[in-house]
Amino acid sequence: MEFNKHLKNIQVYEAGKPIELVVIEFGLSPKDVIKLASNENPNGCSKKVKKIVSKNIHQMSLYPDDSMFELKQGLANKFKVTEQNIIIGAGSDQVIHFAIHAKADEKSAILTAGITFAMYEISAKQAGCEVIKTNRPTHNLDGFLSLYEKHKKKISVIFLCLPNNPLGECLDAKDVYSFIKKIDKNVLVVVDGAYQEYASFKDKQKAISPHKLIKKFPNTLYLGTFSKAYGLGGMRVGYGIANKNIIQNLLKLRPPFNITSLSLKAAVEALKDEDFIKKSLKQNLKELKKYEKFCKNLNLEFINSYTNFITILLPENKSSTKVCDLLLKKGIIIRNLKSYGLNAIRVTIGDKKQNQIFFKTFKEVL
Amino acid sequence: MEFNKHLKNIQVYEAGKPIELVVIEFGLSPKDVIKLASNENPNGCSKKVKKIVSKNIHQMSLYPDDSMFELKQGLANKFKVTEQNIIIGAGSDQVIHFAIHAKADEKSAILTAGITFAMYEISAKQAGCEVIKTNRPTHNLDGFLSLYEKHKKKISVIFLCLPNNPLGECLDAKDVYSFIKKIDKNVLVVVDGAYQEYASFKDKQKAISPHKLIKKFPNTLYLGTFSKAYGLGGMRVGYGIANKNIIQNLLKLRPPFNITSLSLKAAVEALKDEDFIKKSLKQNLKELKKYEKFCKNLNLEFINSYTNFITILLPENKSSTKVCDLLLKKGIIIRNLKSYGLNAIRVTIGDKKQNQIFFKTFKEVL
Repeated sequence: MEFNKHLKNIQVYEAGKPIELVVIEFGLSPKDVIKLASNENPNGCSKKVKKIVSKNIHQMSLYPDDSMFELKQGLANKFKVTEQNIIIGAGSDQVIHFAIHAKADEKSAILTAGITFAMYEISAKQAGCEVIKTNRPTHNLDGFLSLYEKHKKKISVIFLCLPNNPLGECLDAKDVYSFIKKIDKNVLVVVDGAYQEYASFKDKQKAISPHKLIKKFPNTLYLGTFSKAYGLGGMRVGYGIANKNIIQNLLKLRPPFNITSLSLKAAVEALKDEDFIKKSLKQNLKELKKYEKFCKNLNLEFINSYTNFITILLPENKSSTKVCDLLLKKGIIIRNLKSYGLNAIRVTIGDKKQNQIFFKTFKEVL
Repeated sequence: MEFNKHLKNIQVYEAGKPIELVVIEFGLSPKDVIKLASNENPNGCSKKVKKIVSKNIHQMSLYPDDSMFELKQGLANKFKVTEQNIIIGAGSDQVIHFAIHAKADEKSAILTAGITFAMYEISAKQAGCEVIKTNRPTHNLDGFLSLYEKHKKKISVIFLCLPNNPLGECLDAKDVYSFIKKIDKNVLVVVDGAYQEYASFKDKQKAISPHKLIKKFPNTLYLGTFSKAYGLGGMRVGYGIANKNIIQNLLKLRPPFNITSLSLKAAVEALKDEDFIKKSLKQNLKELKKYEKFCKNLNLEFINSYTNFITILLPENKSSTKVCDLLLKKGIIIRNLKSYGLNAIRVTIGDKKQNQIFFKTFKEVL
């Protein structure tokens, strides 16, 4: 059977058995396994969210409210925009999919940083469009600009990941704004704020206000998620904020009932518990500083992080693959950045105890 | 801003406020509202599923196992296929999306029954491809065949909804097999079995075995769902079964983490409680027969249903819109089929008590 031509350029992502099970195969007990690989919130989610979901378990049988008006209302209030400025996705991943499929095709290209969130490339390939990346791994706006000028005819979407996953760096808001000013109004500039809560908590200069962004620039789309600071990675809820025209066009690509009934309940409630978020952000920054100190003490290079993870660049004689394997055997799961072409690891900032164990074990295997 | 051209042909589906709230605005108490509109299982889901999900509430924070190997194993055992024959979607809706986006584009067309599941057309329009429908509303294989012959060059996917939503009729398996035999092996024939549990329970001649289907025909894709008989409509889990080559190509379009952690837990457990399904199917058939008798007594025409709903055709002097509005004011929510060009209603088979109230109230408003 023949399939659409561009599928030939796509590799199926073959997820192995859950890594937790692999670790258990090393003879470890599940309670001794520490997962610092997926940037999940080590505090889980708000107790209030758990309570409301438990109370609504019967809703598993019922289709969700597809208008999602309560969630949109909550987000609209939070961000001082209207409900018509909001689209909900199954994770912000799905909004990335909508954005690319609304703007790009086999004749277009998207522009991203050298190393950035993998979903931009996955979605682009699914739409059959080209991916142009800057030479430097981290976001470098001069590099973006010169590639934009060079490929002006085919670039339809630009992705800025602020702060950037999996590296952790973050551009200043003012530099982002001067960059967007130089971009043609027909090019969609996506500002992915999946980790913005962490960045703006650490440094106000990194803070992007979706309200201000979309007011200043009619060609921008801000992305947010409940997966990180809100601790709901398993529930797949993200959102896009843009002007009404962009949202209306993205909505054309939204499948009905794209998030579950329980996800909807969880997200609506999560917005009401700002204390949980503040506590998580405070704890994260405190623990992140311990990582920075730890690296300095060991003379390890790291990227200054504005997120809930840290990227540590290993010396040439220490292979990231070997380090990850050794940690795995001791029950610590982190992310190897070898596939991105870096001899580096990405470690999620865990809770106090998890981090202590990481520091101790990492020293042992290094 | 310009968007991809085919978006111009798509209307945004504007879901209103949840109809439950509208009813409450009529001064009714939520407990007096009966929703027979979305073909949800009136028994909810298995108690075992509720228990396992409650126990795993903490997993809301953790990304799901993206290999989904436990769920695939469960389905593979159930259907006597291998895990490589299975793809999981956020509802079978998402597998429809994968199928269309893998095979069709702006130069292609899909072929469906005159009135059938709305997602085929929604997905096709999102891919920019044409939708060719048979003249007759219900599935009529001669009609399919003549349109297929006429538009052979552009038809890349054929959808058979067995049984058909929203009408309820179902083709015999042997007729389906002789039809598929006549179709070119490069055309993907999708057999949507979302309601197959109900059909095969009522009449063995309707039963399509996915195992047999994909063995006989290398160009078929069987779709199943946890939303109907399994009572998990709110959790968005469906699946596709096909030969490895088709599955590999559909997997290229699957976004990572496309179902939630709790949905995964729920679906795995749901497969283990066959008693719940048997009980639901038995109850549904018993109650469906009451609807048939009720219609006969009132001299109302209905479509012989192989599902958990029944489509009742109203006499010319009774407008379906008026009937639905009157029922709504009395707290009964059903589906008006006016938008499909029929003066008809679709009623989900509820539990004994719900159906009694429906019969009584329907007689009053008719």
